[in-house]
Amino acid sequence: MAVKILKVYNTDEDIYEEIIGEVQEEVPEAWPENKELKIIGKRIPRINAPEIVTGEAKYAYDIIIPGMLVGKILRSPYPHANIKNIDTSKAEKLKGVKAVITYKNTSNVRIGRDPIFNTTVKYEGEEIAAVAAVDENTALDALDLIKVEYEELPFVVDPEEAMKPNAPKIHPQGNIVRGRPSVYSRGNIEKGFNEADIVIEETFRTPVVHHSQAEVHISVAKWEEDYLTVWDTTQGVFRIQSSLANIFHLPVNKVRVICHYMGGAFGCKLSIRRHTVYAVLLAKITGRPVKIALSRKDDYLAGGNRPSSIQQIKAGIKKDGTLTALYQKTVGAVGAYPGSAGVTTPLRTLYKCPNVKTEEYSVYVNAGQSCAHRAPGHVQGTFALDQMIDILAEKTGIDPLELRKKNYIDRDQQSNLPYTSKYLLEAYDAGAKEIGWERRNKIPGSGQGRYKRGIGMATQIWWGGGRPPAFVNVKINSDGTVNVLSGAQDIGTGTTTIVAQCVAEELGIKLKDVKVTIGDSEVCPYGPTSGGSVTAPSMCPAARAAARDAKNKLLEVASVILKSNGKPLDIKDGRIFLKNNPEKSITIKDVIGRSRVGMILGSGAREDNPEGYAVNTFGAHFAEVEVDTWTGKIKIVKYVAAHDIGRVINMLTAVNQIQGGIIQGLGFTLSEERIINKNVGRMENPDMCNYLLPLAGDTPEIVSIIVSKPDNLLSHTGNKGLGEPPMIPVLATIANAFYNATGVRIKVLPMTPEKVLMALKKI
Amino acid sequence: MAVKILKVYNTDEDIYEEIIGEVQEEVPEAWPENKELKIIGKRIPRINAPEIVTGEAKYAYDIIIPGMLVGKILRSPYPHANIKNIDTSKAEKLKGVKAVITYKNTSNVRIGRDPIFNTTVKYEGEEIAAVAAVDENTALDALDLIKVEYEELPFVVDPEEAMKPNAPKIHPQGNIVRGRPSVYSRGNIEKGFNEADIVIEETFRTPVVHHSQAEVHISVAKWEEDYLTVWDTTQGVFRIQSSLANIFHLPVNKVRVICHYMGGAFGCKLSIRRHTVYAVLLAKITGRPVKIALSRKDDYLAGGNRPSSIQQIKAGIKKDGTLTALYQKTVGAVGAYPGSAGVTTPLRTLYKCPNVKTEEYSVYVNAGQSCAHRAPGHVQGTFALDQMIDILAEKTGIDPLELRKKNYIDRDQQSNLPYTSKYLLEAYDAGAKEIGWERRNKIPGSGQGRYKRGIGMATQIWWGGGRPPAFVNVKINSDGTVNVLSGAQDIGTGTTTIVAQCVAEELGIKLKDVKVTIGDSEVCPYGPTSGGSVTAPSMCPAARAAARDAKNKLLEVASVILKSNGKPLDIKDGRIFLKNNPEKSITIKDVIGRSRVGMILGSGAREDNPEGYAVNTFGAHFAEVEVDTWTGKIKIVKYVAAHDIGRVINMLTAVNQIQGGIIQGLGFTLSEERIINKNVGRMENPDMCNYLLPLAGDTPEIVSIIVSKPDNLLSHTGNKGLGEPPMIPVLATIANAFYNATGVRIKVLPMTPEKVLMALKKI
Repeated sequence: MAVKILKVYNTDEDIYEEIIGEVQEEVPEAWPENKELKIIGKRIPRINAPEIVTGEAKYAYDIIIPGMLVGKILRSPYPHANIKNIDTSKAEKLKGVKAVITYKNTSNVRIGRDPIFNTTVKYEGEEIAAVAAVDENTALDALDLIKVEYEELPFVVDPEEAMKPNAPKIHPQGNIVRGRPSVYSRGNIEKGFNEADIVIEETFRTPVVHHSQAEVHISVAKWEEDYLTVWDTTQGVFRIQSSLANIFHLPVNKVRVICHYMGGAFGCKLSIRRHTVYAVLLAKITGRPVKIALSRKDDYLAGGNRPSSIQQIKAGIKKDGTLTALYQKTVGAVGAYPGSAGVTTPLRTLYKCPNVKTEEYSVYVNAGQSCAHRAPGHVQGTFALDQMIDILAEKTGIDPLELRKKNYIDRDQQSNLPYTSKYLLEAYDAGAKEIGWERRNKIPGSGQGRYKRGIGMATQIWWGGGRPPAFVNVKINSDGTVNVLSGAQDIGTGTTTIVAQCVAEELGIKLKDVKVTIGDSEVCPYGPTSGGSVTAPSMCPAARAAARDAKNKLLEVASVILKSNGKPLDIKDGRIFLKNNPEKSITIKDVIGRSRVGMILGSGAREDNPEGYAVNTFGAHFAEVEVDTWTGKIKIVKYVAAHDIGRVINMLTAVNQIQGGIIQGLGFTLSEERIINKNVGRMENPDMCNYLLPLAGDTPEIVSIIVSKPDNLLSHTGNKGLGEPPMIPVLATIANAFYNATGVRIKVLPMTPEKVLMALKKI
Repeated sequence: MAVKILKVYNTDEDIYEEIIGEVQEEVPEAWPENKELKIIGKRIPRINAPEIVTGEAKYAYDIIIPGMLVGKILRSPYPHANIKNIDTSKAEKLKGVKAVITYKNTSNVRIGRDPIFNTTVKYEGEEIAAVAAVDENTALDALDLIKVEYEELPFVVDPEEAMKPNAPKIHPQGNIVRGRPSVYSRGNIEKGFNEADIVIEETFRTPVVHHSQAEVHISVAKWEEDYLTVWDTTQGVFRIQSSLANIFHLPVNKVRVICHYMGGAFGCKLSIRRHTVYAVLLAKITGRPVKIALSRKDDYLAGGNRPSSIQQIKAGIKKDGTLTALYQKTVGAVGAYPGSAGVTTPLRTLYKCPNVKTEEYSVYVNAGQSCAHRAPGHVQGTFALDQMIDILAEKTGIDPLELRKKNYIDRDQQSNLPYTSKYLLEAYDAGAKEIGWERRNKIPGSGQGRYKRGIGMATQIWWGGGRPPAFVNVKINSDGTVNVLSGAQDIGTGTTTIVAQCVAEELGIKLKDVKVTIGDSEVCPYGPTSGGSVTAPSMCPAARAAARDAKNKLLEVASVILKSNGKPLDIKDGRIFLKNNPEKSITIKDVIGRSRVGMILGSGAREDNPEGYAVNTFGAHFAEVEVDTWTGKIKIVKYVAAHDIGRVINMLTAVNQIQGGIIQGLGFTLSEERIINKNVGRMENPDMCNYLLPLAGDTPEIVSIIVSKPDNLLSHTGNKGLGEPPMIPVLATIANAFYNATGVRIKVLPMTPEKVLMALKKI
C-alpha cells in the first residue's frame, strides 16, 4: 500500500495552499466479470445474519456495563421560548439521581461553536436538561422535578410564512439560512427560454418526512481515567471519534467509538448529536458509564428529518423535444438550526440542457433540525423534475421515454467530465420491456370503471464513487482462517458481508472462513463515514487490495515450500498450487500452521477516485398503478427498477437495497408526512401509529434489474454505490403512473386517499 | 514486511520434510547508541501505570458480564485415589446451580489426548468436578453436595522414594518420566577426570517452590453462537486461542482470547489449563458466560510449581584452574503429570570445559504438576554449579572471580556457535568493583563476633534472543497520535511501554501520543507466547519496523506537501522537516489531518533470529551478607547485579526486572518451600501466610549495572531478554557469600534461620 493522491485542504492558516501530488501505487488489474468469479456477484446471505436474527448481535442498546446509569433528556414543550430560569435542586435531591446538566453548568462544553443547551429553545423537543440516574424510572421522575420558567415567544413553522418580513425571527440574521439563496447557472437562461417553442411552469411540494429508522439514536459512554469509549449508533465511528476528541479536548487515540451493528440510519446518524455529548459528559461527571437512548417521540422531534420543498420549475422545450432552458426556484424548511434544503441537482445534471439556473432557499422554522435523508434533495427534486418531463412530453406529443432518451447526455454537465460508466439507456430499455411500456394509456385517464390503471416512469442519478481513503487489514491465521479489520462500519447495509466476499474471492478461500471486525475506531483502520452510498465503492477495493497483499506474501512463502523456482502459483479452495502443475500443492493451513511465519498480514487501501471523470449511478424506474376511484387508494400493481451500479458484489444485498429504497419511496409518496399543528407549533404524529410508514402488506411486486458491467475506470473491483439510488425516482414514477391512470396530476405529497379523491373531485 | 525465513515442521504426514528457504527482507540499520536517542534507554514509567495503580485496568477477574455465572472446581482431598463413583444429583438440584461436569459427562472433551477429568486422581487438588452457579456461595454449596466415592491408593511424594522399584506407581510406565534420564555428553568424561589434578563431588538440593504470582489463574468464557471469547490470565493469547480451537473443534478465527493486563505469571500461565476448559465448557452448556477464578489454595495445589532438584556434581580441575571434566546427575520431582526437572544447562554451557556429561531424571510424585518457573532449571542448576566453582577455587587456591575468568569462553559449547554478543567479563569487573571484591574474607568465616560478614558471587547465562515471528501494526491518526496493535501480551513486565517507546522513538513523536493495544488474538497481529524472556527481543524490532513503515509513508506524503523534490526528510518532536532546511516543515498532524490520506498504516515484523549465532544474556551477581550467628538470620547488606542485556530499552523497567528477579531469588534462597506432609500427602502451606515469600522489609540495597551495548548482530533494536536472568545467580551468590562469612556451606535450600543455626552447630 502506498499513498496515491494527496489534496491538502485550503484553510485559513494553511500556508501550503491547494496542492495536489501523487505517490504512485500499483493498482491490481480489475477482476474478470462475475461469471468467472466464485463469490462475488452471487446471492449470498449476510454472514452475520444468524447473530442478527437470534438477537446475539450487540447493538448499542444491548451494551450493559456494571454500574451503568441511565440518562434522560428534558425537552422543550414549546416551539420557541426563552428560558428564564431552571431549578434542578429537587431533581438533584431525588434518590438515585447522580447528575443533572443544564445550560448553567455546561457552558464550557461546545459542539464546534455551539453550546450544548440553548437559553432560547427554538423547537418543540429541543434539549433543556439531561439527568443520569440509577434506572430509567428515576431518571424520568427527575425530569418531572426540574422546574423551568419559560417565556414563550412567537413562532413560525411554515417556510413561506417564515420568509415574510414580519415573521418571528428564529435567528438574529433572519430566517433564510446564510441570508441568501444558493444559486447555480450555466448558459443563458433567457436565451434558452427565447429559443423554446413551449414554456411550462409548475410548482411541486413535498412535506417534511422522517427517517423512522428501526433503531433510535443511542449512545453509551464510559470513561477509564482519561480514556473514553462510546458505543454509538453512528454512520461514522471515525467522525464521531474526531468530534468527541475536539469537544472534550482529547487526543484521537484516547477516544474509541464502536458501532458493531446498526439498525438503520438513512443519514440521520452522520454527525455528532447532543445526546451523545450528554452521555459522555454525564459519565465524566458521575464517574460511571451512562446510556442515553432516545425515545421514539424524542427521535421524531429531534432526531432529524428530510426538509420540505416547494419547487417552482420553468422549462423551455422545442417541438422536437430538445430542452432549451430549465429554471428551478425552491424553498425548503430546514428546521430551527442550519441545514440545506437543496433539491436542484437532478435538474442540473440529469437531462441534457445548455441553459440552466437554480435558486435554493433554505429556511429556518420552529421545528426539529433537518439532516441528510437517503439521497438528500434528489428524491424531492426528481419528484418535480421527472413529472415536468412527462408534462413536457405531453405538450410536445412525444412519448415520455423517448423524450428522456432524446435528452440523454454522456458527461456530467456541471463539471464537463465524462462518466466512468453510464448504462442509463440500457436501464430505460430493460425497464420498459419488463413493465410493458407499450401498454400505457395513450390518453391518460382513459380507462373506465372504478379501478383505473396507468404506467409511469422516472430516472435516477446519484454519485457513485466511494469517499476514499479507506483501509482494510487482513490476518491469515494458523489454520488458514482469516480475520479482517475493516474501516467504515456496517450501518445495516451488509458491508461486513461484501468486505468478507472480496477477501474470500481474492484469497481463494471459503466465505465462512472469513471473520470481519468493523466499526471500531481503535482496532480497525480508517474508513469513511457511511453516507452518500460511498461505503461499498470505498471498502471493496481496499478489502481486495488487502487480501491481495496477504495473498502475495502467502504465495511467496508457499513458493519456497513447493520449490516453485519462480513458476507462478495460484490459490483455489484454500489450496495453493503450481499453475502449470496443479498436483504440486499445499493448503493455506499447512503453509502457515507448519511454517514459522506465525500469521500472514496484509494491508490494502483505496486511495482516491479516478481523476478526470465523474462517477455516477443511474437508474430507471417503471410502475403500473391501479387507482381505486371510489376510495382514493393507489395500489402498485408492479414495480420495475433497472439500475446501473457497476459490478454487483452481492446480488442478494443489492436487491435488498433496491427493494428497501422503493418501499421507503412509496411511504414518502403515499402516506408519510410530519404534521405540525400550526396553532401550537407541535408535531401531531411523533409516533409510529400516526406517522404512516408503509407496512408489509403495502409492498408490491418488485422486479430488480441490474443493467451494468464492472466499472473498471472507477476501481479494480468496479462497483458503484447503491444505498440511495433506489429511493430517488419512486415518487415521480408513481405520480407519473397516477397521471397516466387518471389524467390528473397530484403535485403535493403525500398522495393520500383523501388527496386523490379531492384531485378526482370525488369529495 | 516480507517473510524472511521459513522452516516447515517435520511431522508424520509432512511430505515436504524439513525445508529452509528465505524471502529476503530489507532490515533497517541499527539505531545508534542510546545517548543519541530520545526515548529508548531512558527511565520511563509504564505508560499504563495510572490505570494499574488506580484499579481502572481490567484484569481477568474484573470482567463482569451480565448473566455471568461463577464456576467452582471440586478437587481431590487425597494424593492418590480411584474414583469409584460420583453422585452430582443433589448439587444439580440446588437452586441456582446451572451445570455440573465430571468425568461422566465430558468424555468427549480432551486436551490433546488427555481427558479433562481423571478417574484416578494423582495429587491433592486434582480436579474432580466443576459447577456453574449464579453466585459464588451457591457454587461452593454445590461442591459440598457432590458425593464422591474414593478408593484411596498408596502414594509417594518424595522423588527418591518414587524411583525405588517397590514405590507406588503413579503412571503405568513407572515413575520416571519417559522411563529414562535425559543424557547429554561431549568430549570424554573419563579422560577429563583423569587429566584433573583435583576431583570434587558434591550434592545440592532445592525444594519445590511456587510462583506465588499476584494474580491467580482466572478464565472468563463467553459464547455468542459458535463464537467463543475468553478473557484469560495467560502468557500466550495466541497459544490459548489455538488450544481452544483444537479442543472445541473451532476455526481459529472463531476464538478470541484476551489478556489486556496480567498480575504476574513467571511461567505458570504458558499453556491451556483445565480450569479454562471447564469455564468454556460450562459456558457452552449453560448458554451463559462463566468465570472461574482459582482460590489461592487451588493455585498452590494445582497452579504449577518449580520442580525440586537433587544435584550431584563431580568436577575435575587442574591446579592452574583449568576445568577438565564436569559431570552432573540430577533427580527432580515434576508432580503427578509430565514435566521436566532438567537443571544442567548452566553446567553444560557456562564455563569452558571440553568433557561434560549430564543425566537428568524427571520423577513423578503424587503432588501438583510442575511447570516453567522463571528461568526453569537454570536457577537450581546455577545454585549447585556456582557453589561448586567456589569450592574448586578454594581447593586450587585461586580467587573465585579469577577462576571464573579463567574458564571464560566466547562461544556456545553445545552448538559451537559464536555469541552475537557477550559482555560477561565486563559484568565481572563492574560487579566486583561495586561490591568491593577485595574486601572479602581471605579466610572464610574468619570474622569475629555475633555478626559475620562475607562476600560472594555467581554467574548467569540464559537465552537472549526472541521467539519470532512477531508482528506489530501502527496507525497514525488524523491528529498525529498513534494507535499500535501489538502481538504478544504484557504479562506485567511492561511490554506495552517498550513497544510504545520503540514506535515513538522511530516516529519522532512523544511517548504520550502512543496508545498500545496488546493481548487480543482477534484484533492484534500474531506475537509469541511471553515466556523465556523472548518478548522484548521479539516485539521491539517488530514495533520499530512497523513505525518505520508508517514513517516512510508519512514522509512520502509530506515530501509532496513540502515539495522536497527528493531531498531527505526527517521527523523530530512530531514535526517533519527537510534535513537541509529544517525551517521548511510541517507537523504530522497537519500532514494527515489536512490531507486526504485519512490515516497512515504501517506494519512490521521480526521474522527470525540470526543464523549462525547463539544468542545469550550473561550476568554476574555479587552480594555482601551479614549472618547473625545468634539467630541464624541472613541479612543482605548489599546486592550488586551486573547484566549483559544488549541495548537497554527502558532503564526503569529493566532495573525493575533485575530487582524483581533478585527478590524472587532471595525468597527461593532463604524461605520458600512447598511442604508436603509425607504421612498424608497433603501440602501444609498452600497459603501466603505459611508459604514464606520475601516481604518489603527483606529487600536489600540493590545496585543494578548494565554492562552491555546494543547487540546489532541480533537485531536492529539490539535488545536481548531480561525477564529471567536476574533470578538465576541469586541462590549461589548468597550461598557463596554465606560461606565466605561463616566458613560453612549450606547445600540444601532454603537457608532458614534454623538450618543456618544447625549448620553453625548452634542447635
